[in-house]
Amino acid sequence: MSQALVVLSGGQDSTTCLYWALRQFGNGQVEAVTFDYGQRHRLELDCAARVAAQAGVPQTVLPINTLAALGGNALTETGIPVQDGVDVQTGLPNTFVPGRNLIFLTFAAALAYPRGIHHLVTGVAQTDYSGYPDCRQATIQALEQAIQLGMAYDLTIHAPLMFKSKADTVRMADELGALPALADTHTCYNGVRPPCGECPACRLRARGFAEAGIADPLLAVP
Amino acid sequence: MSQALVVLSGGQDSTTCLYWALRQFGNGQVEAVTFDYGQRHRLELDCAARVAAQAGVPQTVLPINTLAALGGNALTETGIPVQDGVDVQTGLPNTFVPGRNLIFLTFAAALAYPRGIHHLVTGVAQTDYSGYPDCRQATIQALEQAIQLGMAYDLTIHAPLMFKSKADTVRMADELGALPALADTHTCYNGVRPPCGECPACRLRARGFAEAGIADPLLAVP
Repeated sequence: MSQALVVLSGGQDSTTCLYWALRQFGNGQVEAVTFDYGQRHRLELDCAARVAAQAGVPQTVLPINTLAALGGNALTETGIPVQDGVDVQTGLPNTFVPGRNLIFLTFAAALAYPRGIHHLVTGVAQTDYSGYPDCRQATIQALEQAIQLGMAYDLTIHAPLMFKSKADTVRMADELGALPALADTHTCYNGVRPPCGECPACRLRARGFAEAGIADPLLAVP
Repeated sequence: MSQALVVLSGGQDSTTCLYWALRQFGNGQVEAVTFDYGQRHRLELDCAARVAAQAGVPQTVLPINTLAALGGNALTETGIPVQDGVDVQTGLPNTFVPGRNLIFLTFAAALAYPRGIHHLVTGVAQTDYSGYPDCRQATIQALEQAIQLGMAYDLTIHAPLMFKSKADTVRMADELGALPALADTHTCYNGVRPPCGECPACRLRARGFAEAGIADPLLAVP
């Protein structure tokens, strides 16, 4: 029986968290869950599978067809362009799916429950540029409480990147030996590989590596 | 713009809540959401659609394919018989999907958000025979907090049946003029119509009507 379940998107942050969990709970004690929710870039799912395989971690892929059915956002609808900005109506990034991390973590908990896993690990960060309210510490704490009560189950949600800058996260990946795995991650909003280097996600990633003084292994991929 | 969104399963409790919401918020101010999550009895979905149509309430049906993928429970897997009892391992009813109402209410909130709806209504009840932890008042309060923080949105979850007995709920349906609508609801775990009268759900429903001294309109359906 594993001790921890990592929500693995295939991106830089969740991959770093996977290696954090392996350090924290030990090899053979960690599993990963990836959500197939109709994301525009299927490449993310390939990246997540490669990262899990390379780390020797069992991965469960769970489908969620509800987010696409809710519709109206740039992350799942191909007709809506991703812009470097916020929705004028909501003040939120236009890639925002309301409560997305509440959904991901609750489904992760529902997977952890029958497996007797008591630790969830997520890569959300309050310091993230985006201001997503479902990435904040207060939200994660409230959700942990709701899940504990709603499932009558002792479950801790770990968010090891919560208060880290992108540069700190890069340094942490380096210390954890996770840098090679970051070559397999996906960040670019435009869904291309090698990454476009122009979109907000690419620029944020590049700034983090630059500030940490570490070369991004993704850019060394031929 | 509507004021309230009711989670409508097609059962007795959520139907009663729909009429409570119409009384509370007014005609034209109420919408319904029904989840198609792979329930064994598709009849429930037909009932929910009929109830919404009869009440003149717009209904959104949202698919959730994740619960069936999580698997291992009697409500979604046809191979597992529903028993009158509890899982010996978990001490919970063997129809239990961990955190099901957390998921339903979070998706309902994600639907309410872009519509500017600030009130969710759910038929969960702490006094329910089943002991589901996700039906308890403390869970609903914690989830309301998590959703408010996670969506940065002012949202109230109403559970008007929370502390009512089944007999009280029947009396409430009577006062609200909801009894005719209860002829269209589905309760039976065995998924037959007219209901089997033998399963725990049928027996609980019958006891509620008997204690209230009111005839169940479902049993008068030819």
